[in-house]
Amino acid sequence: MRNIKLTLEYRGTNFSGWQIQGSAKSQGRRVSPPTIQGTIEKVLRKILQEEVRLIASGRTDAGVHAEAQVANFKTKAKINSVRLQLALNGLLRPDIVVKKVQEVPLDFHARYQAKSKLYRYTILNRRYPSAHLRDYVYFYKYPLDIRRMKEGARLLRGKKDFKAFQASDKKSRGSIRTIKKIGVRRKGDLVYIEVEADGFLYNMVRNIAGTLIAMGRGSDFDLKKLLGSKDRRLTGPTAPACGLCLIKVKY
Amino acid sequence: MRNIKLTLEYRGTNFSGWQIQGSAKSQGRRVSPPTIQGTIEKVLRKILQEEVRLIASGRTDAGVHAEAQVANFKTKAKINSVRLQLALNGLLRPDIVVKKVQEVPLDFHARYQAKSKLYRYTILNRRYPSAHLRDYVYFYKYPLDIRRMKEGARLLRGKKDFKAFQASDKKSRGSIRTIKKIGVRRKGDLVYIEVEADGFLYNMVRNIAGTLIAMGRGSDFDLKKLLGSKDRRLTGPTAPACGLCLIKVKY
Repeated sequence: MRNIKLTLEYRGTNFSGWQIQGSAKSQGRRVSPPTIQGTIEKVLRKILQEEVRLIASGRTDAGVHAEAQVANFKTKAKINSVRLQLALNGLLRPDIVVKKVQEVPLDFHARYQAKSKLYRYTILNRRYPSAHLRDYVYFYKYPLDIRRMKEGARLLRGKKDFKAFQASDKKSRGSIRTIKKIGVRRKGDLVYIEVEADGFLYNMVRNIAGTLIAMGRGSDFDLKKLLGSKDRRLTGPTAPACGLCLIKVKY
Repeated sequence: MRNIKLTLEYRGTNFSGWQIQGSAKSQGRRVSPPTIQGTIEKVLRKILQEEVRLIASGRTDAGVHAEAQVANFKTKAKINSVRLQLALNGLLRPDIVVKKVQEVPLDFHARYQAKSKLYRYTILNRRYPSAHLRDYVYFYKYPLDIRRMKEGARLLRGKKDFKAFQASDKKSRGSIRTIKKIGVRRKGDLVYIEVEADGFLYNMVRNIAGTLIAMGRGSDFDLKKLLGSKDRRLTGPTAPACGLCLIKVKY
């Protein structure tokens, strides 16, 4: 048995997100777009002539992109890494690209062993949208006070209960996470919010982005109180998926 | 009568290029994608309730992008620039964006008065493609010798007869142009070829890019001899449209 680690770049726009949907969940929808996991597993099956199960560092939602998602799978196949990468990139649709294929120790697990993940949220902050960037940014035309957003971000750093920033309809095992780094910066018309944490709750980055944008626009949020409240209804709106990109997974 | 200047950003991927096709030319094709000119004129007609004719600084081919194309049109309508920009961006499809609307003197002509245009050709030079950049770069996986490409570029600078770099099937009034600036640089996996000239022959930048890429790959081109020959068959292949972007028009 071998354990193969993939580093993946993808454009989330035309996918239902990373994870394969349960059949119960997809009933009722006519044609839902494919998932990234499902698309890659299908191609792997073709190449390896074997059923494989891809495990990612974490799910990404519909419309969310990845610069370097990490996933692994086990296989009996003997194909070497270089050939496997070529075969995958040859057969995959062009909005998924395999950047790296590495054989790793059998105990490597893309999700359990991830020490931290870095997400970037990108806002296009000018009076008109962009034809080139539109699927990769949240177009927000009102002026943003970056200083206020930076101040807000600073208050979110550290080990905290982020329940207030979790999508309200999801259960989970605890909501304490550690934000190791968080920063806001402007470069020309683009505003970047980068968050590195040991784990993320469902929609956490998009809820943080929505709250920081509201603060940059002038809304007063008492972030300490908000974190204490654990009440999702008190944070800003969830920022759209298209602005979000998984940049790096650290092991 | 008023003369309105538009600065336009567009993603050329899903268009037949800038210019409206003559009916004779489009016969035989079943459904050809719309043109950028036709798409904007249609929306202008809707807003202004008037026939208008858009004049661009120059045509761009199918698949070629623009960071800042310039076009102008004359109108009797009284709508102000801010409202016109909002109306255009509201009604245009998202792969065309109006960055600026300015009222200009009646004698301004986007093509005749253009002093120079700057094009950028972008190559993704690494072993695997990119899911994010794929419509904006030419993916070329073999190593490129940037030094040789720079040397080649230097020989193309100045006032010369560029007939050898003109698509062979096009007639034109003379083929002498002046390349004011031309440069090749690498930034990470991307290689940029930038060319500024007082005018461009049909496919000239793509033919230059194809020739410089062939040189970077090791082919020997005697560029002085090649320019002297005026023979298109002696240059490198035409590089694909997707890598090309009109960056700036100077007046």
